[in-house]
Amino acid sequence: MKLFKFATIMFVLVYMVPAQEPAAVSPGTAGGQARAKIISPEVHADGRVTFRLLAPKATEVLVQGNWEGGRGLAMTKDASGLWSVTTQPLEPELWAYTFSVDGVRTLDPSNYNVQRDGVGFMNTVLVLGERSKVFQPQRVPHGSMTAVWVPSSLMKTPRRAFVYTPPGYEGGTNRYPVLYLLHGSGGDEEAWPVMGIANVIMDNLIAQGKARPMIIVMPNAYWNELASLDLAGPRTAPPPAVGSGAGSSSYAENEQDIVGDLIPFIEKHFRVLAGRENRAMAGLSMGSGITLNVAFKRLDVFASIGLLSSGALRDPKAGMETIQKINPKFLADPATTAKMLRLLFFSCGTADPRVDGMAKVAQELNSRKIPVVWKTYPGEHEWRVWRHSLADMAQLLFK
Amino acid sequence: MKLFKFATIMFVLVYMVPAQEPAAVSPGTAGGQARAKIISPEVHADGRVTFRLLAPKATEVLVQGNWEGGRGLAMTKDASGLWSVTTQPLEPELWAYTFSVDGVRTLDPSNYNVQRDGVGFMNTVLVLGERSKVFQPQRVPHGSMTAVWVPSSLMKTPRRAFVYTPPGYEGGTNRYPVLYLLHGSGGDEEAWPVMGIANVIMDNLIAQGKARPMIIVMPNAYWNELASLDLAGPRTAPPPAVGSGAGSSSYAENEQDIVGDLIPFIEKHFRVLAGRENRAMAGLSMGSGITLNVAFKRLDVFASIGLLSSGALRDPKAGMETIQKINPKFLADPATTAKMLRLLFFSCGTADPRVDGMAKVAQELNSRKIPVVWKTYPGEHEWRVWRHSLADMAQLLFK
Repeated sequence: MKLFKFATIMFVLVYMVPAQEPAAVSPGTAGGQARAKIISPEVHADGRVTFRLLAPKATEVLVQGNWEGGRGLAMTKDASGLWSVTTQPLEPELWAYTFSVDGVRTLDPSNYNVQRDGVGFMNTVLVLGERSKVFQPQRVPHGSMTAVWVPSSLMKTPRRAFVYTPPGYEGGTNRYPVLYLLHGSGGDEEAWPVMGIANVIMDNLIAQGKARPMIIVMPNAYWNELASLDLAGPRTAPPPAVGSGAGSSSYAENEQDIVGDLIPFIEKHFRVLAGRENRAMAGLSMGSGITLNVAFKRLDVFASIGLLSSGALRDPKAGMETIQKINPKFLADPATTAKMLRLLFFSCGTADPRVDGMAKVAQELNSRKIPVVWKTYPGEHEWRVWRHSLADMAQLLFK
Repeated sequence: MKLFKFATIMFVLVYMVPAQEPAAVSPGTAGGQARAKIISPEVHADGRVTFRLLAPKATEVLVQGNWEGGRGLAMTKDASGLWSVTTQPLEPELWAYTFSVDGVRTLDPSNYNVQRDGVGFMNTVLVLGERSKVFQPQRVPHGSMTAVWVPSSLMKTPRRAFVYTPPGYEGGTNRYPVLYLLHGSGGDEEAWPVMGIANVIMDNLIAQGKARPMIIVMPNAYWNELASLDLAGPRTAPPPAVGSGAGSSSYAENEQDIVGDLIPFIEKHFRVLAGRENRAMAGLSMGSGITLNVAFKRLDVFASIGLLSSGALRDPKAGMETIQKINPKFLADPATTAKMLRLLFFSCGTADPRVDGMAKVAQELNSRKIPVVWKTYPGEHEWRVWRHSLADMAQLLFK
């Protein structure tokens, strides 16, 4: 817990140290509460978390958190108008929450840890422990994250993708295998970098020698969406077609986008190892549907595949039929399929309704001698499952 | 206004289209207001903006905006509990605002345009027009943004910087001049990419042939702060020394950090044009103080300098003395100074208390035959001034 307290103290200190210049004029700061005086969230040594909000005029303040029992957690008001509540001990994890102030969804003004998931913003609170170490920034060599613009033959304009290159890439000469990693419905190319903390996970695993240094390419999985626009500019004025990404039912466009456009761009502009055995594709939720339809079909392109929280396998019988339809040879010649696959990784949250179906498909494939690595993690259809999925999958890739 | 309406419509559509998979579980969405039903902000053809918030239980809702008259703008409640207010016509600009709901600072839950400035989060609303075109994303070639980790000899660990490389950099062989661009107090290396929209401004100016293609390096200007941690991981668990960036009074550390560590790293890892005439340094507010102390001293390193909203020049007499102290030769031999400087650019907001002092120093230097380009923009000590400053300065650099 020491690190967290250090951070809290430093945060307060920064506010007290006289700066050389005042900060920029910022709307809503004047007349607001004195932020540095309220500590929220406060993580206790036993994992309990106290939330606080100064709101003397409010009649009801709730915490909406994603831990068990975290929905609609009522806060109580003291005489000064300070609302607070303390949770039961929480497991080491990066938890997410918002406040509800008289029915209005509100960020915690005392917590500058904010993540965007699609169009929603939420605070995060990190409970430290063995289980959360893999996505905590450590004093290890860091890879770089680059936002690149990849020409799309379908959209006739570039689309944005993030590329993680491992420590030593810059100024080096080594070539690396590549994981193509897709987000889910409502997400965009910033989902894995921000919600998934993919770069920190990889930095840590590579530093410990647990994962091979690799490049990870995180495109916008909607073939017809140009960018999340966080870096591209103000999102109120997107270029035409932004926001129109609603997926497609045929997946032909996804295949063209990824195999036809993205991979050639990456292999031209980055130092990659050639060949299918050095390419992996994985995705979560909607991204696992795209992965299923593209990578299971194109084993000539990908030798490693990861399906995270896949709705397509929720009904195991329909899931097997889908696999059969996507690539008849996949099931017809299991010996060849098994030989071609360096890794087939399935994972799901234990409280996700997709978990039973995925388990059955994994079992069925294993019984047909197509080996599946099957992992489950505490949680529903959410990022804490996907962060740990990436951490485990990355340790098995390209080995 | 057509583009904005298109965006609004698409935003609603995305919510109505049945997705292949539901979005991730997100705290605070259950029981919240139905977001797609409330349009806020709504920008009218004449530049008026209507803000709306559903908050039946609230007793007072205000808009805190950064336009004239935008502070504490009272909203009124209708019978359904919907609060709203419409502004006077606003100039074309990227405006920032928050709501105050019964005294609690709140983001607009209907507006997914959110920017972080230091530890504060705010919504933005873009009023389109000639003046805002320079930072609107256009269908032009895009440069890349890379988050790199630069070894710091002072901190004995890497520090993060963003690097903008112009369209055509990847896969090309050209070399480019470099602008080192610093944020202000309370900011970090994400300030210019996110609040400053530096990459979009450069994409647009380069596409129009108004600016030379250049590399822009945006470090964390606090020499003792490692990263903003948005990409580095959850900010509740920063590595030691993050958040400790409180500047320094001697500027020796800044000089070591920028001239000793940052420039050699950039020149090793990026295709830059060599020599002082291809290096510029500029900064806003605190960053202009660092620029003044480093670049005015190190004319052997930088041939172009920009000071944006500089508190060090607020008192013009003290400002001239500071210049004298930093580099006695600067004023003693104006002919040589003028010959060495390709560009000396000053700018400030017309409502910023620094504006008169800066104008006087510019006038004084011009009278001594050290040419200063002096620009003012409507606004206080804020990003709308700095975005336009960058747009104008970039058109004069390296020419």
